[in-house]
Amino acid sequence: MKQQVHDAARRARVAAATLALTPRTDKDTALIAMADALLAHTDEILAANAEDVAAARNADIEENIIDRLSLGAGRVAAIAEGTRDIAALPDPVGEVVRGSTLPNGLQLRQIRVPMGVIGMIYEARPNVTADAAAICLKAGNAVLLRGSSSAARSNAAIIDMLRDALKSVGLPADAIQRIPADDRSSATHLMQARGLVDLVIPRGGAGLIKTVVERSTVPVIETGVGNCHVYVDADADLDMALDITVNSKTHRTSVCNAAESLLVHRAVADAFLPRVIAALQERGVTIHGDAAFQALSNDVVPVTVEDDDTEYLDLDISAHVVDSIDEAINHVRAHSSGHTEAIVTGSLAASQRFAMGVDSAAVMINASTRFTDGGEFGFGAEIGISTQKLHARGPMGLTEMTTTTYIVTGAGHTR
Amino acid sequence: MKQQVHDAARRARVAAATLALTPRTDKDTALIAMADALLAHTDEILAANAEDVAAARNADIEENIIDRLSLGAGRVAAIAEGTRDIAALPDPVGEVVRGSTLPNGLQLRQIRVPMGVIGMIYEARPNVTADAAAICLKAGNAVLLRGSSSAARSNAAIIDMLRDALKSVGLPADAIQRIPADDRSSATHLMQARGLVDLVIPRGGAGLIKTVVERSTVPVIETGVGNCHVYVDADADLDMALDITVNSKTHRTSVCNAAESLLVHRAVADAFLPRVIAALQERGVTIHGDAAFQALSNDVVPVTVEDDDTEYLDLDISAHVVDSIDEAINHVRAHSSGHTEAIVTGSLAASQRFAMGVDSAAVMINASTRFTDGGEFGFGAEIGISTQKLHARGPMGLTEMTTTTYIVTGAGHTR
Repeated sequence: MKQQVHDAARRARVAAATLALTPRTDKDTALIAMADALLAHTDEILAANAEDVAAARNADIEENIIDRLSLGAGRVAAIAEGTRDIAALPDPVGEVVRGSTLPNGLQLRQIRVPMGVIGMIYEARPNVTADAAAICLKAGNAVLLRGSSSAARSNAAIIDMLRDALKSVGLPADAIQRIPADDRSSATHLMQARGLVDLVIPRGGAGLIKTVVERSTVPVIETGVGNCHVYVDADADLDMALDITVNSKTHRTSVCNAAESLLVHRAVADAFLPRVIAALQERGVTIHGDAAFQALSNDVVPVTVEDDDTEYLDLDISAHVVDSIDEAINHVRAHSSGHTEAIVTGSLAASQRFAMGVDSAAVMINASTRFTDGGEFGFGAEIGISTQKLHARGPMGLTEMTTTTYIVTGAGHTR
Repeated sequence: MKQQVHDAARRARVAAATLALTPRTDKDTALIAMADALLAHTDEILAANAEDVAAARNADIEENIIDRLSLGAGRVAAIAEGTRDIAALPDPVGEVVRGSTLPNGLQLRQIRVPMGVIGMIYEARPNVTADAAAICLKAGNAVLLRGSSSAARSNAAIIDMLRDALKSVGLPADAIQRIPADDRSSATHLMQARGLVDLVIPRGGAGLIKTVVERSTVPVIETGVGNCHVYVDADADLDMALDITVNSKTHRTSVCNAAESLLVHRAVADAFLPRVIAALQERGVTIHGDAAFQALSNDVVPVTVEDDDTEYLDLDISAHVVDSIDEAINHVRAHSSGHTEAIVTGSLAASQRFAMGVDSAAVMINASTRFTDGGEFGFGAEIGISTQKLHARGPMGLTEMTTTTYIVTGAGHTR
């Protein structure tokens, strides 16, 4: 299996060298051919997906995972549309990031170039297969796709069609390759193919991400785990605070930018707690609260440190009253996964202190945590949300799938 | 030891939270106090260094390592001057990297913020201690300095003074901490303190860097190994090619941006090889050449694949004649460490093809490989040269010691 993964990576490197020199128009032509192929072969993709879904049901896999695994004609059309949208986005490759003429006359330019070969290790959702392939291709990269075994047939069908589309426009099919998922070791070999693979991106549950981070020798961008906080400041508009808390918690609970924790300044606790408890409970949320919350409702469960560290991804929220904004900041620093925190306040000073004091990828001032998203940010495409500080932080689009190189032009300059 | 390293990292996190909110003027005041302290205590630093040097001589350590270890009053003054220069540089923290108003009215800003806690694992040179501390501080980071045991006394003396200087201006001394070098495991604990340390930068020989890359669970920026190439194209000005080859190889051999390999297009081999062989041999360079080189001088040693993969850091160079620019590009891709490659050519097309075709941090067009350097690039300070693609590539200055965060301001926006 190691040999097989390394051989795939070597072929990907050859393809990447071609892609690095491929102009935007040719890449866009390929993306449109990919979108057309997905649409034209919808029936085959759905047939393969139906087999995956049937196998998952036989294996008694949880219904929410089956839901993420399942494709319909509408989802395939949406995937194709997404691929077409990526063709319409500007090409990040070639962008001059900085440039100057040095005192000795050397002309210095730092320009964006493709990363090279990117390994994706991900769970269930077959739409990630096409999305990741399209984003990587647009940014001039070859991609090695290692999905989950439960989606193996769907992924294989999609990848076969994408490869055919590349060939049809004269680009190397090996720019998009499938790493077999029937052997767990294939993921390990992919994440340890240092020198052959330039970057690994894990997408999935906390367990998957932890494994990749700990075992990879290839540089990794950690994505996704979101233990997000909403802090209601002493100077908050409480109607706004209620809307933002409810939206952040309940708009969609299974996503990384959903709120998992609520902090309320003591100055507004008397006025705010009864309202927020009622509003959350009305929507079926279990509040894991401190003494102040418990005192107001028998349905509030006592909060534990484990609660404070938990990304519920469900109708649960931990909740505390804090004595100051600094206590809120310290609580966030101690328990957050560094994804997104929101503050509701009318105070400019408080908003600035919170934004600079917490240490997270995104801070929402008077807005729902749910806005941390490549689509919402206007990136046009998103390959994941980075919760690490190196290279990319927050939603990652095409730009984050590139690196840079310095081109220095002289006239025989020596030192 | 693990406890000790983790405790230091926790104290560093507390200090980092303060530094993140410290304005530039206070950081610059600290840097000037640090420079003053180094100058005022030169005698103590030199006394500590003399003990390190004596111990190294007793242990029969190689003379070139002792040279890198040794400080004199001049070197200490230069270190202090470098610290003062960093105070004069712009603060990267707070820079708005991108910003826009989204269609829904949300105001999006991506701004530079400190990385947090940076671990440096490095060999011999005590000047790295002060340089790294100053660069990290200016960018708002706390730093954990794990130097080599051979420089332990020098590093301890320098770090004590820097910490006193921080205290004297009211900043937390724990922003600069020494990780003991008397136990090899301290480096391991530092590189595996994931969640406590945000970034590890190894600086030193290939062995050190390989160990850190393989064993670290904290994100790493790989630095330094430079197997740099000079390619003399068919359209090269041969006088210029000779100057650039000799300068790249011999100006300073022990540095990562020195050339280690020469590629010459066959079209100019007859005219160029005799000249370059004579010029290099005159300067004491051993040429490890292919048949074309061997045919012209008995002193040319047959080149091996190992030679092509070697960073000599000495008066040695591997040398080949190639049939085309693409053969040169493929040779570079196969053997380079991705640091710096130079092309000498009068052809615009050739310069572009080479620059986009190789896959390295820097490409010099008609200039010596020796120009890949933070100082030469005008960065004012350099903490190392990254040869990886993630986060930073090429010389790293203050900007590369920051990450970014998205600040999104709304007026009660929900989804």
